[in-house]
Amino acid sequence: MRNSAGISAAISELKALFGPRVDTGEAVCRAHANTLTWIAAEPPDAVVWPSTTDEVVAIMDLARRHLAPLIPFGAGTSLEGHVNAPLGGISVDLSRMTRILAVGPGDLDCTVEAGVTRGALNAHVRDLGLFFAVDPGAGEATLGGMAATRASGTNAMRYGTMRDNVIALKAVMANGDVLTTGGRARKSAAGLDLTRLLVGSEGTLGIITELTLKLHPIPARVLAAACPFGSIGGACEATIEANASGLGLARVELLDAVQIRAVNFHSKLALPELPHLFIEIAGGEAATEEQLEAFRDIALRHGALSFAWAAGADERRTLWRARHDAYWSVRTMWPGKTVLVSDVAVPLTALACCVEETVADIAEAGVPAPIVGHVGDGNFHVIPVFDEADPDAVARVRRLLDRLVERSLSLGGTCTGEHGVGQGKMVYLERELGRPAVEAMRAIKGALDPLGLLNPGKMLPEMG
Amino acid sequence: MRNSAGISAAISELKALFGPRVDTGEAVCRAHANTLTWIAAEPPDAVVWPSTTDEVVAIMDLARRHLAPLIPFGAGTSLEGHVNAPLGGISVDLSRMTRILAVGPGDLDCTVEAGVTRGALNAHVRDLGLFFAVDPGAGEATLGGMAATRASGTNAMRYGTMRDNVIALKAVMANGDVLTTGGRARKSAAGLDLTRLLVGSEGTLGIITELTLKLHPIPARVLAAACPFGSIGGACEATIEANASGLGLARVELLDAVQIRAVNFHSKLALPELPHLFIEIAGGEAATEEQLEAFRDIALRHGALSFAWAAGADERRTLWRARHDAYWSVRTMWPGKTVLVSDVAVPLTALACCVEETVADIAEAGVPAPIVGHVGDGNFHVIPVFDEADPDAVARVRRLLDRLVERSLSLGGTCTGEHGVGQGKMVYLERELGRPAVEAMRAIKGALDPLGLLNPGKMLPEMG
Repeated sequence: MRNSAGISAAISELKALFGPRVDTGEAVCRAHANTLTWIAAEPPDAVVWPSTTDEVVAIMDLARRHLAPLIPFGAGTSLEGHVNAPLGGISVDLSRMTRILAVGPGDLDCTVEAGVTRGALNAHVRDLGLFFAVDPGAGEATLGGMAATRASGTNAMRYGTMRDNVIALKAVMANGDVLTTGGRARKSAAGLDLTRLLVGSEGTLGIITELTLKLHPIPARVLAAACPFGSIGGACEATIEANASGLGLARVELLDAVQIRAVNFHSKLALPELPHLFIEIAGGEAATEEQLEAFRDIALRHGALSFAWAAGADERRTLWRARHDAYWSVRTMWPGKTVLVSDVAVPLTALACCVEETVADIAEAGVPAPIVGHVGDGNFHVIPVFDEADPDAVARVRRLLDRLVERSLSLGGTCTGEHGVGQGKMVYLERELGRPAVEAMRAIKGALDPLGLLNPGKMLPEMG
Repeated sequence: MRNSAGISAAISELKALFGPRVDTGEAVCRAHANTLTWIAAEPPDAVVWPSTTDEVVAIMDLARRHLAPLIPFGAGTSLEGHVNAPLGGISVDLSRMTRILAVGPGDLDCTVEAGVTRGALNAHVRDLGLFFAVDPGAGEATLGGMAATRASGTNAMRYGTMRDNVIALKAVMANGDVLTTGGRARKSAAGLDLTRLLVGSEGTLGIITELTLKLHPIPARVLAAACPFGSIGGACEATIEANASGLGLARVELLDAVQIRAVNFHSKLALPELPHLFIEIAGGEAATEEQLEAFRDIALRHGALSFAWAAGADERRTLWRARHDAYWSVRTMWPGKTVLVSDVAVPLTALACCVEETVADIAEAGVPAPIVGHVGDGNFHVIPVFDEADPDAVARVRRLLDRLVERSLSLGGTCTGEHGVGQGKMVYLERELGRPAVEAMRAIKGALDPLGLLNPGKMLPEMG
């Protein structure tokens, strides 16, 4: 139920406190609603840009008094309707909290405000020979938003997801408390793991304002290759064997033939239109050489048609830029069409089966739908391209994506490997985890946000 | 407040259901109370050995009806009073739930019942070329207990702690629900991270009955060395540099001169009585060679007096056996004395300072107190040896350990790197994390166990 009177009163107070840092203009509100899905945009009633944790506390305080929903906002690159405002309310845009508060090269860590972007952090630490490893593709994603959605990406195979790379965080809770989840020790057994509870909570439990993050030394040597396979199943089998043999590859990305066509078109490459694995190996001189040889053997055994390494840093960057632009390449290739990205993850040995059955489903759906994924983690995306004005196409795409999730769940997988639940995957949560898990999440949500103010209508069905 | 009538009624029902699998004998109850600390043993009123998750549900059901506390019990190797029963109640001993339900070599995972021990799991998967990486020293520790305390140990530097190695779990919740936290996908963004919430919850939120765990391929080559240093500070500095340079060592353990003396005595070794780093390097042939060279340079630059590698697998096993037996070596060396193990972790760059000031404190306390630790994670243990009948010695040890935690906290560290809070570290939790964190933990505890039945009197002060 929309509390319009309370929201209005909250916005009046906000304006008094934040002046020009509050905006109720339609265009600005619209830009803070969800854009990258077919879920209808549900704009907030106002946007506020706090500069400090204390200001977020002040916002929380007035939201509580007026029962106005708050929707935390980073860069708006989430994919499942996370930043929509189904009950209206105030978008809390953290993108101006961009201070890098500390970097500890000896401890391989840093402390940043939530609005610092991945790109900005990496630019800041590069001269120290360090980098921040989680790489969801979107360079402009904020680290706070990445933590809130438990983002991962191409580097997760080696360096883990945000779950593994957040050492501790600071969050403003619904009761106004400023929660600190830990210090700078790399490991701790001191109480419940509130860090991991907030990471992936999608703004429903608290507003993350600061993060202490792991950094990693830039590897001495990095090798990359684009490796074409005769079949998508062979590419999957090579991935499974490389993983099981403990090679320690840095990245293993799958792009199917359709995705390669789009990548060629967008990035002006001339890769053969076949399923590819894009591989990265990183480490010492000898170690990388050793991994390279081992992976070449595995790839050739599973039907790799060639095995050429990107000669230098430039060629390597071209390759990964092309991979990162996969989504945009699809939009470029099919201008004017609706482009969706769905995301599942399965146990690695189920990958070939899951991908191959999905390819058959795509053929039946009769729409282009490139497949691209972090297959080293069993995680892949399907990117259907269609005309939203065609109800039949919409129905076929819905069925395709629904079957994708069903297949993933039936294989022991998850309805989302990295995009999160938001609004789009709510319907699957109980099917994946069962009623007790959803009830436990609801109990936690109810305990920490009894008034349901924080990002209502997300993640947990029938909450808020 | 002890609910003696309810506990009696619950035990009567238990006996009807479980027959000889319930024991109220004093010796058995005593053996299920805490033994490895100076915290007084507080035995439960009965012990029950369930065989299945359904039986744990039945136990939970009668506990709820009679308001009888349940204390989950694995192998009893926890160190902070986790298995004491301050309000009486029933110890739920999971050590007979020992089925290994599935092993997936291609997915590098397995699913086991909570009572399976580390040692049993490793024996089971060794022939597949796999191992379970978390190694807290105690081979008889159960995997359920290790998850409940977020155990780690010597391998955590490379493979992470239980936090990182539990893919999903099954737990019986206070309301009788059987919670499943996830499937077998390596990563998921589907909802709140209930896996990580249960890992480290010390039996206060649910009784873990099943776990899906990561396995790892046994590395092609493993090298080990015991490396003596002229000063403990030098050993710490070498560790810091090795970490910052991203060498990827498998283990880095510090043993101070006193600990080396005990190890020599217990394990019949002849190491020089100096601070040592015990190192392990694992990986491919070339990669291990490369790391070996790099670490040798670093060690010699920081005052290593020699640098000899354990020649073969036997010599390597002798070394790690000696390290594992560190606690028992201290007990052997000072028979009849009380031996405590405390545990802190600090940011790595604070390690030298923290250890050196602790050494000075130990001298002032006037008791032997070897230092041994997983310094690659900034985590170390102090093991004071004293006479509990001497109140002055007890007071000096208390002061030593209190100052140890204070120092760790003042350096940005934690009051416990891996042993957990239990009863012994409760007093420090709020000092470390602040009131908002403890309040959030209480809110979660209240939401998931409103009657306070699960392991009351642990972790959260003034609960249950």
